[in-house]
Amino acid sequence: MSFDEESVRRTSRGDVRLRGFGDLVAFGEAMDWVTRHGTPLDAEEVAIAEAAGRVLARPADAPADLPPFDRVIEDGYAVSSGETIGAGTYNPLLLELRDAGSAPRPGAAVLVAAGMPLPRGADAVIPFAEAQASGPVLEVLGSVAEGVGIERRGVQLRSGAALAPGGRALRPRDLAVLASLGGERVSVVRRPRVKLVISSAKGGAQTPAPDANGPMLRALVERDGGLVLAAESGGDHGAALRQAMAAPGADLLLAAGRTGTGPDDDAPLALAGAGRLDVHGIAVRPGGSAGMGRAGPLPVILLPGDPLACLCAYELFAGEMIRRMGGRDPRLPHPVVEAEVGSKIVSTIGFTELCQVRLADGRAEPTGAPGSGGIASALRADGFVVVPAPLEGHAPGSRVLVHLHS
Amino acid sequence: MSFDEESVRRTSRGDVRLRGFGDLVAFGEAMDWVTRHGTPLDAEEVAIAEAAGRVLARPADAPADLPPFDRVIEDGYAVSSGETIGAGTYNPLLLELRDAGSAPRPGAAVLVAAGMPLPRGADAVIPFAEAQASGPVLEVLGSVAEGVGIERRGVQLRSGAALAPGGRALRPRDLAVLASLGGERVSVVRRPRVKLVISSAKGGAQTPAPDANGPMLRALVERDGGLVLAAESGGDHGAALRQAMAAPGADLLLAAGRTGTGPDDDAPLALAGAGRLDVHGIAVRPGGSAGMGRAGPLPVILLPGDPLACLCAYELFAGEMIRRMGGRDPRLPHPVVEAEVGSKIVSTIGFTELCQVRLADGRAEPTGAPGSGGIASALRADGFVVVPAPLEGHAPGSRVLVHLHS
Repeated sequence: MSFDEESVRRTSRGDVRLRGFGDLVAFGEAMDWVTRHGTPLDAEEVAIAEAAGRVLARPADAPADLPPFDRVIEDGYAVSSGETIGAGTYNPLLLELRDAGSAPRPGAAVLVAAGMPLPRGADAVIPFAEAQASGPVLEVLGSVAEGVGIERRGVQLRSGAALAPGGRALRPRDLAVLASLGGERVSVVRRPRVKLVISSAKGGAQTPAPDANGPMLRALVERDGGLVLAAESGGDHGAALRQAMAAPGADLLLAAGRTGTGPDDDAPLALAGAGRLDVHGIAVRPGGSAGMGRAGPLPVILLPGDPLACLCAYELFAGEMIRRMGGRDPRLPHPVVEAEVGSKIVSTIGFTELCQVRLADGRAEPTGAPGSGGIASALRADGFVVVPAPLEGHAPGSRVLVHLHS
Repeated sequence: MSFDEESVRRTSRGDVRLRGFGDLVAFGEAMDWVTRHGTPLDAEEVAIAEAAGRVLARPADAPADLPPFDRVIEDGYAVSSGETIGAGTYNPLLLELRDAGSAPRPGAAVLVAAGMPLPRGADAVIPFAEAQASGPVLEVLGSVAEGVGIERRGVQLRSGAALAPGGRALRPRDLAVLASLGGERVSVVRRPRVKLVISSAKGGAQTPAPDANGPMLRALVERDGGLVLAAESGGDHGAALRQAMAAPGADLLLAAGRTGTGPDDDAPLALAGAGRLDVHGIAVRPGGSAGMGRAGPLPVILLPGDPLACLCAYELFAGEMIRRMGGRDPRLPHPVVEAEVGSKIVSTIGFTELCQVRLADGRAEPTGAPGSGGIASALRADGFVVVPAPLEGHAPGSRVLVHLHS
């Protein structure tokens, strides 16, 4: 039996509406789906000025020496250091002062500025404060050692030296190095194009609930390097989802809402009808009604409609999917700090739980019982703790890793 | 004597070209300039969907209860919990099953889905797995406690409760809360509009050096919440700078290059001529040729042309200026870790130095002597250590704070 058949058998639970999920898919199996489907996209060339935060498609080597020639790094007078031996305040050395750009010669100094090529024959630069110019004559008031105020070709980087490994997100100063080496464009992993389909929240016509998930998901996708193609919401969610699955152009579809067991939870059936529903109903809290599947080649992740559940399922599954497709480090991007548990962090054995905590005096305090407090508990939180399925939580005084919301 | 006169007197050192800086401005005095001129800009309204990373102009309070009504948070059957007392597998309770949206009544259960308003008279939800529907009759196989599966109005947030303090950058989940409360727009501090004027690097016509600082500065300004208006480079730097200072539209001008003591270092004179040069020549390394001043109301920061010096002067001065203007936390935005010093970190007494280090086995190792190694030393570095002016460095084994490049 191939893996895919097994996958379908395991998750083809039929219609869960008005029945409940029954057995849930283990967290690790859902993560396996993300790992299998989250393969890096192809490369594209972008201008260096637009490449901040992008991920190199392959390791970059220096195409040339840096600096590309011996050069001056201090403003002053370029000299041959050997000629200055013995010079001092009471024994000034007199040199012929030549303008910047002049050809140098023995017994002469050349006016230079940082960044210029080092005049041939010179091997040091005397700063302005240590010499006195007087018309065409320069009075040198001290000796200078070879190499002072200059930088030899290739001393920063040799041609062929490793600049950055593939998969590395480019930082501002990486751009300066790449540009210094004379590059104009760089090959980076294409940003995953993510289409969002957001269900209008439930509540009946008399209480139209606002779209809370659209703005949040847009920001999360961009944080993880994805490109939000469109965020559609309202109307018939199943129909909007079917239309989005049939349209070209996206690398990933995230659909928020209508994933549960209620009468109008039509997202899983829409996905099963258009392709296949590999995973639905996962042993995580909040966010367990999430699902995963494919419509043709297009991976689709179904996120719950409740904003806190949507956030948690995004952080556990969709975020890693986008980071993997974009060639990034798949791990959660939040800074991590270790903290001592204050009040007990409660979790149910068998469920991977994402518990919102605030940090007070270096201690992690839950901001609400698991699954309660809603998105506002995440508002009060400084971060979250992931409690693995085998644990029933963390006792006061134990130490946990807190992923900081940033 | 007013402060400004004192400031002019202290820094009106005249033309430093071909002479050297003489006395340098203390780091703290240069930071005072940044603090005085980096005042937050005015507020603007933006759509919540576009507000990720923006900074609230004033503290936000909840304009309404969240949730705005008693509501269902589990799919199932809404009931009056009191009617289920005593129900069990061997003693099923029979209730009239009514459709979603029906008016409830004694002896009846209403089909509900998470997110819906709680039907009047119901105070709990029985999940699908614990009841058996059979046409118009629901067999309830267990009792349910009051409050299970529902969420009362305002339990997440009461109207008027503090949502976020002013100055707080909005995180993805903050957007979900703001949108859940029915908001559409939010008042945030306007992004500082930053104009860049980049000098073409020196080297003579036969070796035109590429613009390394433009891509780096663009990325740094965006990291700190600024909006890059334009990045002009090439040609006559002094003329480009004078033109940029005269043009309207920018909140801050950053000019990179031509700040030193060489014959073509015309940026400080251009600024002094168009307005005033408050600070030039600062006791920091690298980046000491940086300057600050104003052209009319427009603050101008002069950054050195060498990419590493430009990066360091940006991190020490310009970045904080932009964060202050944008209402952000003025501190360096890098994550900070404590590390033990490996090889000695060397610094000169009297200079605030920014030393690039890499982290190996939790120890901080310098990637180059101060002022050497160029921008490539920053490439190899994981972060940097700021060594205060009174210190001559950090001895092996001492503990330092490393600002991580991210």
